[in-house]
Amino acid sequence: MSSHDKGRFITIEGIEGVGKSTALRLAGEVLKKENVPTLLTREPGGTPIAEFIRQNLLNPNIDEKLLPESELLLMFAARAQHFKNVILPAINEGTWVVCDRFTDATYAYQGAGRGIDRERIAWFESWVQNEMYPDLTIILDAPVDIALQRAKKRSLPDRFEQETHQFFERVRECYLQRAEEWPTRYEVIDATLPLDEVQEHLKNLLHRWV
Amino acid sequence: MSSHDKGRFITIEGIEGVGKSTALRLAGEVLKKENVPTLLTREPGGTPIAEFIRQNLLNPNIDEKLLPESELLLMFAARAQHFKNVILPAINEGTWVVCDRFTDATYAYQGAGRGIDRERIAWFESWVQNEMYPDLTIILDAPVDIALQRAKKRSLPDRFEQETHQFFERVRECYLQRAEEWPTRYEVIDATLPLDEVQEHLKNLLHRWV
Repeated sequence: MSSHDKGRFITIEGIEGVGKSTALRLAGEVLKKENVPTLLTREPGGTPIAEFIRQNLLNPNIDEKLLPESELLLMFAARAQHFKNVILPAINEGTWVVCDRFTDATYAYQGAGRGIDRERIAWFESWVQNEMYPDLTIILDAPVDIALQRAKKRSLPDRFEQETHQFFERVRECYLQRAEEWPTRYEVIDATLPLDEVQEHLKNLLHRWV
Repeated sequence: MSSHDKGRFITIEGIEGVGKSTALRLAGEVLKKENVPTLLTREPGGTPIAEFIRQNLLNPNIDEKLLPESELLLMFAARAQHFKNVILPAINEGTWVVCDRFTDATYAYQGAGRGIDRERIAWFESWVQNEMYPDLTIILDAPVDIALQRAKKRSLPDRFEQETHQFFERVRECYLQRAEEWPTRYEVIDATLPLDEVQEHLKNLLHRWV
């Protein structure tokens, strides 16, 4: 997603408890200081329809098991709205978009986690995103035990946080694998480092892009 | 979807105002008289999650335009829940399922109506339905003017009923084309005939299957 008058598209990924929200806020501050017009957003969500899907369907409000296929379809329905109605117009007018989770999370959670084929997800991705992808994906990485311990302190477990340890091992493994396959698009930050070091790493990374 | 201890899967299709609900009820009565265990259902809907999607996302409750891609994704999310949690288990235990609209409606409305490729819909269909298809699809056919006139008398227009005349011409054309392509699966009933003739036609059709 390049060309010089356009904004950049940066996504922040990682399992629960690695500090994505803090990283998102910090990225916003760094870019603001550089006078870069910035939009901070999140997935699933970012538009009224997508937030509605997140709140009511991807969280267990209804007494019926959500199938992995339906979960995938709902994720991409929310993403289509977010990408085409919010992200793409912002980027086209020169705004940098920083998004807490995007399609890498689908590969990790619905793919590696729930067992849906990677090729199938790629088919959805290329259709819904018109073959456009993030410029930079920052993966905050930590061992599953440490990350989940942090996530537990924070709030009630959501539907994903109720998953098994093995589920999150597969999710983490998928993120790291993707970073290894496409080193130019991905940056892995060790989220077990002291907070100021993580922030320093993130700042340097963003400054390289501004 | 055959084999002798299993139930049959019958779908009823057609544009607004052709009498699908009446036909569904009648089909239920005919099969009941024959002591065939029957489930009458509808799409989008038929499960708590699918009905929720119908009521809240496929009808205009949220102030954001629903994109054609998202509409398609939501239709298939609802269908996955309905097909795998309700229709398939019923058929497997010997129940006949009669459904007011199914995937033909997706070809007609999201495909011919909104312009999404037929091949793309076929890809979703084969995935979500595990390559299983209705045994019999009854298309109630009437010219668009007559059908919409009837639909208007009945209730407030829904999101689809607000579409243009041309939209419904394309939808009707798609239904008729499918019936022509696969004459063994489809039966077209002229919905402009007097009600008792339509019902007679439907009865004869079902008796051939029982």
